[in-house]
Amino acid sequence: MKVVTFGEVMMRLSPPLNYRLPQAASLEITYGGGDANVAAALAWMGVPAAHVTAFPQHELGHAAAAHLRRFGVDTRHCLFTDRGRLGLYFLEVGASLRPSRIVYDRADSAFANLDPAAFDWDEILKDATWLHWTGITPAISAAAAQATADAIAAARRLGLTVSADVNYRRNLWQYGQRAQDVMPPLVAGCDLVVCTEGDADDLFGIRAEPGTENGFVRMSEQLAARFPQIKRVIATHRRTQSASHERICGLLWQEGQFYETPFYDIAPVVDRIGGGDSFISGFIFGAATYGSPQEALGFATIASALKHTVHGDINLVTPAEVEHLMQGNLTGRLVR
Amino acid sequence: MKVVTFGEVMMRLSPPLNYRLPQAASLEITYGGGDANVAAALAWMGVPAAHVTAFPQHELGHAAAAHLRRFGVDTRHCLFTDRGRLGLYFLEVGASLRPSRIVYDRADSAFANLDPAAFDWDEILKDATWLHWTGITPAISAAAAQATADAIAAARRLGLTVSADVNYRRNLWQYGQRAQDVMPPLVAGCDLVVCTEGDADDLFGIRAEPGTENGFVRMSEQLAARFPQIKRVIATHRRTQSASHERICGLLWQEGQFYETPFYDIAPVVDRIGGGDSFISGFIFGAATYGSPQEALGFATIASALKHTVHGDINLVTPAEVEHLMQGNLTGRLVR
Amino acid sequence: MKVVTFGEVMMRLSPPLNYRLPQAASLEITYGGGDANVAAALAWMGVPAAHVTAFPQHELGHAAAAHLRRFGVDTRHCLFTDRGRLGLYFLEVGASLRPSRIVYDRADSAFANLDPAAFDWDEILKDATWLHWTGITPAISAAAAQATADAIAAARRLGLTVSADVNYRRNLWQYGQRAQDVMPPLVAGCDLVVCTEGDADDLFGIRAEPGTENGFVRMSEQLAARFPQIKRVIATHRRTQSASHERICGLLWQEGQFYETPFYDIAPVVDRIGGGDSFISGFIFGAATYGSPQEALGFATIASALKHTVHGDINLVTPAEVEHLMQGNLTGRLVR
Amino acid sequence: MKVVTFGEVMMRLSPPLNYRLPQAASLEITYGGGDANVAAALAWMGVPAAHVTAFPQHELGHAAAAHLRRFGVDTRHCLFTDRGRLGLYFLEVGASLRPSRIVYDRADSAFANLDPAAFDWDEILKDATWLHWTGITPAISAAAAQATADAIAAARRLGLTVSADVNYRRNLWQYGQRAQDVMPPLVAGCDLVVCTEGDADDLFGIRAEPGTENGFVRMSEQLAARFPQIKRVIATHRRTQSASHERICGLLWQEGQFYETPFYDIAPVVDRIGGGDSFISGFIFGAATYGSPQEALGFATIASALKHTVHGDINLVTPAEVEHLMQGNLTGRLVR
Amino acid sequence: MKVVTFGEVMMRLSPPLNYRLPQAASLEITYGGGDANVAAALAWMGVPAAHVTAFPQHELGHAAAAHLRRFGVDTRHCLFTDRGRLGLYFLEVGASLRPSRIVYDRADSAFANLDPAAFDWDEILKDATWLHWTGITPAISAAAAQATADAIAAARRLGLTVSADVNYRRNLWQYGQRAQDVMPPLVAGCDLVVCTEGDADDLFGIRAEPGTENGFVRMSEQLAARFPQIKRVIATHRRTQSASHERICGLLWQEGQFYETPFYDIAPVVDRIGGGDSFISGFIFGAATYGSPQEALGFATIASALKHTVHGDINLVTPAEVEHLMQGNLTGRLVR
Amino acid sequence: MKVVTFGEVMMRLSPPLNYRLPQAASLEITYGGGDANVAAALAWMGVPAAHVTAFPQHELGHAAAAHLRRFGVDTRHCLFTDRGRLGLYFLEVGASLRPSRIVYDRADSAFANLDPAAFDWDEILKDATWLHWTGITPAISAAAAQATADAIAAARRLGLTVSADVNYRRNLWQYGQRAQDVMPPLVAGCDLVVCTEGDADDLFGIRAEPGTENGFVRMSEQLAARFPQIKRVIATHRRTQSASHERICGLLWQEGQFYETPFYDIAPVVDRIGGGDSFISGFIFGAATYGSPQEALGFATIASALKHTVHGDINLVTPAEVEHLMQGNLTGRLVR
Repeated sequence: MKVVTFGEVMMRLSPPLNYRLPQAASLEITYGGGDANVAAALAWMGVPAAHVTAFPQHELGHAAAAHLRRFGVDTRHCLFTDRGRLGLYFLEVGASLRPSRIVYDRADSAFANLDPAAFDWDEILKDATWLHWTGITPAISAAAAQATADAIAAARRLGLTVSADVNYRRNLWQYGQRAQDVMPPLVAGCDLVVCTEGDADDLFGIRAEPGTENGFVRMSEQLAARFPQIKRVIATHRRTQSASHERICGLLWQEGQFYETPFYDIAPVVDRIGGGDSFISGFIFGAATYGSPQEALGFATIASALKHTVHGDINLVTPAEVEHLMQGNLTGRLVR
Repeated sequence: MKVVTFGEVMMRLSPPLNYRLPQAASLEITYGGGDANVAAALAWMGVPAAHVTAFPQHELGHAAAAHLRRFGVDTRHCLFTDRGRLGLYFLEVGASLRPSRIVYDRADSAFANLDPAAFDWDEILKDATWLHWTGITPAISAAAAQATADAIAAARRLGLTVSADVNYRRNLWQYGQRAQDVMPPLVAGCDLVVCTEGDADDLFGIRAEPGTENGFVRMSEQLAARFPQIKRVIATHRRTQSASHERICGLLWQEGQFYETPFYDIAPVVDRIGGGDSFISGFIFGAATYGSPQEALGFATIASALKHTVHGDINLVTPAEVEHLMQGNLTGRLVR
Repeated sequence: MKVVTFGEVMMRLSPPLNYRLPQAASLEITYGGGDANVAAALAWMGVPAAHVTAFPQHELGHAAAAHLRRFGVDTRHCLFTDRGRLGLYFLEVGASLRPSRIVYDRADSAFANLDPAAFDWDEILKDATWLHWTGITPAISAAAAQATADAIAAARRLGLTVSADVNYRRNLWQYGQRAQDVMPPLVAGCDLVVCTEGDADDLFGIRAEPGTENGFVRMSEQLAARFPQIKRVIATHRRTQSASHERICGLLWQEGQFYETPFYDIAPVVDRIGGGDSFISGFIFGAATYGSPQEALGFATIASALKHTVHGDINLVTPAEVEHLMQGNLTGRLVR
Repeated sequence: MKVVTFGEVMMRLSPPLNYRLPQAASLEITYGGGDANVAAALAWMGVPAAHVTAFPQHELGHAAAAHLRRFGVDTRHCLFTDRGRLGLYFLEVGASLRPSRIVYDRADSAFANLDPAAFDWDEILKDATWLHWTGITPAISAAAAQATADAIAAARRLGLTVSADVNYRRNLWQYGQRAQDVMPPLVAGCDLVVCTEGDADDLFGIRAEPGTENGFVRMSEQLAARFPQIKRVIATHRRTQSASHERICGLLWQEGQFYETPFYDIAPVVDRIGGGDSFISGFIFGAATYGSPQEALGFATIASALKHTVHGDINLVTPAEVEHLMQGNLTGRLVR
Repeated sequence: MKVVTFGEVMMRLSPPLNYRLPQAASLEITYGGGDANVAAALAWMGVPAAHVTAFPQHELGHAAAAHLRRFGVDTRHCLFTDRGRLGLYFLEVGASLRPSRIVYDRADSAFANLDPAAFDWDEILKDATWLHWTGITPAISAAAAQATADAIAAARRLGLTVSADVNYRRNLWQYGQRAQDVMPPLVAGCDLVVCTEGDADDLFGIRAEPGTENGFVRMSEQLAARFPQIKRVIATHRRTQSASHERICGLLWQEGQFYETPFYDIAPVVDRIGGGDSFISGFIFGAATYGSPQEALGFATIASALKHTVHGDINLVTPAEVEHLMQGNLTGRLVR
Repeated sequence: MKVVTFGEVMMRLSPPLNYRLPQAASLEITYGGGDANVAAALAWMGVPAAHVTAFPQHELGHAAAAHLRRFGVDTRHCLFTDRGRLGLYFLEVGASLRPSRIVYDRADSAFANLDPAAFDWDEILKDATWLHWTGITPAISAAAAQATADAIAAARRLGLTVSADVNYRRNLWQYGQRAQDVMPPLVAGCDLVVCTEGDADDLFGIRAEPGTENGFVRMSEQLAARFPQIKRVIATHRRTQSASHERICGLLWQEGQFYETPFYDIAPVVDRIGGGDSFISGFIFGAATYGSPQEALGFATIASALKHTVHGDINLVTPAEVEHLMQGNLTGRLVR
């Protein structure tokens, strides 16, 4: 198994602890992106994984690539160009009833300005078995959308499994095309999608009762009907209590069958960013490892719950750690 | 609208995280004081606000003034003298069932030793519409009490609204006069007071059932009867669960009417200091902004709840952030 | 009263906050050991206390000794040798459903390699009234077990009270002898033991229903029957909710009588390490200070609960702080 | 005296100590800009000073304004717009023979996109006596150049003294106009300029032997001949030994007379950024304070030397501190 | 050998690195005092040493005592009272031509308010062989001066060697008595004094050419003539290059003989505070260890030079480290 | 070109700044080893490089591997075993005349306990062109020496260039064999060696005047005579001024010709560790890049000088940065 992901990587800058930006004297750095986080979590779990992106050709771009490599991601196919900056985002970590806030500063990045022709997807994907992308990537620029389409086409040609986190972010689509037009042909090339009822409504006009098992199943059936390549749909449902207390469960529709997990409590939440990415990386790992869809889903959901306790965008947990919780050790007792 | 506040500003020194003082290798610095916190929160919300105090004429005094200016407070009327030190307090932040602890080191401060004649209140207040003070100020020294009386007198003369947080701290009154003698004539000059049932009992001999809505209303009526200038009384009730978990609601008595809010949970509490000051600054803002007393009280209470999630004595939240919660967004979901 | 403890002291290295080891850029240092933690907590509470151990003769050994001295422990009887290293352990602090994890790196320490003949116990214990040791000490090496036996024998000879936390850690016993053979003669010399139902089963084959009051009493009676010197048995029961939320109560069997406390909630847990050590140090202090066994047990249990809110292995709380909670102040209200 | 400055303010992000960007886990934040640094240094020395700029209307813009206010700068005339980002620069602090390096990330800032018509210069300058700007400002965009011209015109109309640091940075001029065309009419409105021989050559085609007193005088005479409004020209000469060791002297040409100072050694250099800005703020202060040009120049040069020992872009030194060195106390002996 | 010292201990609060106080977000803590530093350096070198002082009876006092204990100082004879505060001083660390600056905040300390009768000097000194004090102690208050006199009298009675660092600080003498009256009878009880030519002039009216070997010898002879108990006089001469570069040599006059060392360069200076205290502690150690006065002086001077490279007031160097340099290893080559 | 290195990687733990170990509250972590540092510096300069070692199979081993990957090192051939610990070393960074000190804690590491048969050198080296090792590796254990011999044999078989830094550390050789017996056959397989006159004397009995160009040439000739495979010998000469000030030059003997560079001053030294490793990695890069031996040596020497200004064991400089200095830019002027 070898997984390839494609998408932008940003530097994340956060005040320490729960400090607010205007009072911070320093910012902690990490790097992440919805797709890269999947590659990094898989690499940390021992799965060969490569990430493809475009970085600026200066210290910040090299620092971002170094960060991915550190956790085992193959960065050989990353481009280094002088066509733009490194995207940034500033994150204030909230607490209790104060929400976390993000100030994006990602316009005009090297990734947004990438040249789709610079990626030789047949070469990049030649040893790979799985391609993963997120709905954020085609939202960034026409060039990024084109490269996504190229990657999916090559993956289908080479027989890879393709997955997507459709992840609709209204504010991001600003280059003159509508998500509703761009996304469907891309999703049509996918075997597995992460999709919430809200995204299905916004992107594909598929209506379901949001936040119910029933709604999820009905949405999945309609998705699969519309995009016959899709065999599995996954999502988490959240019952957010506060910025410091999250509850999540996992849902899976697989060729007509529905699976779900119990809700898991996370209190306190250490770092909520990347929670969804760790769900999909957990599912990719779980589906390849366990015989049963229920176990794959359980692995994915607990992996995502654990991510909420790990600093940074990347889910630094091992399969053994997830399995320890799957065996019922949910009370966090000290491991010596 | 322009608000002027008067009172001591101290340097606060706290070990990082929940470290105890004897194990700390460094102390984090911030600055605050019950009245200055009100000016700073208002300034950060966009309301012109000035603070009046006396600082020592050295680096620490200038650092404290700089801190207030940073958040928008006008410090032009602050005195810099060589008549005393900068008051300090050392704060250990507790957790769970371990209380936070304060070691005061504020004796002989430049503020305690101020010369009341050095403040030209008619000049200081000439553009202002509101004067706010706390019961801590007249507790510090006879000179400070005299200056408070002078300020109130000038404010009444110039037609300002006057508010006070009566805030009775038994230990502070050590210069030979009784709070029970000093406070009543000062409170008599106020239009609005923050007063709990306990304070009313201790300072004015007004008895009510502490911690009940009924008690608050009865106390307010007696206060208004005793001090006819008072038109509004406000307070919070707390149901403290632990050093890390607070529950608060807001109460308002306004010319015979009673208003209250639901209880808001804060878990975890990031920084409890200044919670009361942010309630009064929230109320001053809310009363000037919203038509209804209920909305003003709601704004004040949520502003105070949010303060518990912000490091430092000063409530660094914007009106838009408070209103986001007033609209029912109480679960702290990430804002992008 | 003067207490002497004996056992290994390790350097503890932890990433800041909840960071994981592979992402940490620095490690916070503290020092501790099950027995030394008891001496240090007692010294901080004002009880003369000395710790006896062997350190390597270089900067790290001196740093560890300095750490103990800082909190008042007499380190005069510590040996400094060139027969081994300073034991280390790396601690990742978990959160919520992610457990804290320890990576031990303690093999071949100066303590493991100690020469039992180097300790002149009659001299060391000459002014002491109490000797405390833990089951970790005889687990480390034959030499350490021999020194423990020597210390107990001297203590009995000199009329000291002897206590032990039997603390069975299966993984530690690796020098070729079985805990089941080594521990009984050592425990036979004790007046007071900390022992859970699980430890009694593993070490002495005493069966009881774990985690019930009934089980604890039955176990205690059998222990006292087997080891007639034992007059008191104590333990805590834990209802761990998560790595961040602990609930504990205290239990005491004293010459046929049973005492217990309510459960105390600790949320959040700041630092769980040393929770048991602070229970026994609290009991030693409480038993010497209060007339009633119930008060001694209450003191011990609240001291242990407070330890969970203090960084480091050592319980830096004063008797006055514990008593403040014993008087019912359990909601962590700010102390000025 | 009241000084107004105009120009961009950027957030500066630096790894701690001498760390390189790709190895940094956090970045220290400060804020600065060539013109704002002058206002802030003057404000800290007690001179009323306002800075005019355009900030983005979000947390980062407010944080930058707060930073200036902290040191006493009046920020009332700063615009907050949604027309762009906050300019950033990343600074790696070198050491010895490794140079410090800056990665700029300032394109498309709120300042670059400012609307010149949004500044009412007659209102802004109405109480001011001095306007200062730098050659960086007209380099940023046509709009910024226009606003600079407007400000100079208003200043001349209102009788202010106008100064400029011509500061030619080739890389910055990227909006389609040449510095050689834009700068001369702006410099023509100045009474005082900071100009090195290299800048005079590049911008005005004035040739002189760079780095010699002679060359400086000849350049100054030609500048004054070309721009008759100019009465004073100042500059520093540097004999840089390494990134950690600087030597500077100050030069002044004033209506035909030449003044210079000895070279001052700075070893180690704590923070080189803003060294030139502190020279001009020192000269503005010195010229207003001392009778003799020599003293004004001495004050400016020592102020600049001291800046090299202060972290951040802003020269946080007081007049008394500079004068202490002017009196010959150049060996840095402890001041109690 | 056992050394006892007497004097105030203060908390020292410094911004990290070379930050200035008004820009600092945190302060690093250490503790020190001229006499306590001597005890701590000796204890760290293995010499039994006790310090006697008065601390406030709260967390800060206990923290200060803990700091001394950490490095081996016996704190049993320290008083804990509620008669005053813990003295503080704020230290800004300079660099190059910017001096370090101290803001004292030590008035009304527990030490200043001590009760001389509370010290039972015969008991305190019963096992000791050496008493050391500094001229700072009698400067603080009449009570402190009285306690100093009592200590010296007891030491003479019990046959101890008495040493003093006369250390005249004009600003400190503010309780109504003149140093010129108080110091001579105290110095008369000393066997060894640290005294510079400047101090001898100020305190005793002894004139010599400051900063010359000749002057030092003439001063020493006059001191010994005036105070016949004095057998040795020591001092360092400094050729301060900058706040970051110091040069020192040591001088000794011993019963008519003069000894001196070469100058030692310290660049950079890490922490200058306590440089003098480490000279006298080094001399006490050296005189007790080496046969020759020249070696004792060499040890003292190198110990003091090394102190300039150690953070904090206390000289954390071992005899072996000093001797390594005495053997000519002065180039700081890595020791593995 | 592809370089493979072989040797132990240790975790390095250092107090921040110049703090001493017994006063440190935290330790900064990095990872390094003489051979791994070469691979990492080359990878950072863009040369494909792999490091081969054995790590313990737990968080610390994975963290160390992650560190190497971050800077581009291929870690695929690293073994993860449960046969030992991660070697550690504690580094105190000295200053001025205080030397840096290392406390090693590396016994019984996974590397020392490696199984030589576990490395398939023909596979590992199949795409490589260069093998580099250091004299530290065979000093660690017989197994490590055997693996080194195996690697060299395979490299010769496959036609790689082989280099060694002979680096004799007397204290390390403790497993029962003499360096004088083990090293010669290993060195016999090398094309290029780093060797000082002192090492040549100690290991091979080759006498030369240490520290002179003459001595270096004579030693090189004798080395080449004894080991005919050797074509190049390189070394640096150091004129260490203090722990903070180093001077180095480079020397090269290449097939009978001698080359040398001027001395380069480094003041201050940021981090001395890895200075030699960066010389050899610089030479490997330089020799492959530049036509002339003089340029290769110049590159190597300046790369090493720059390393002294970079934190950590690894030389994070780019070829462009080195070449900037080779062009004469040695005064560290700011690069924008």
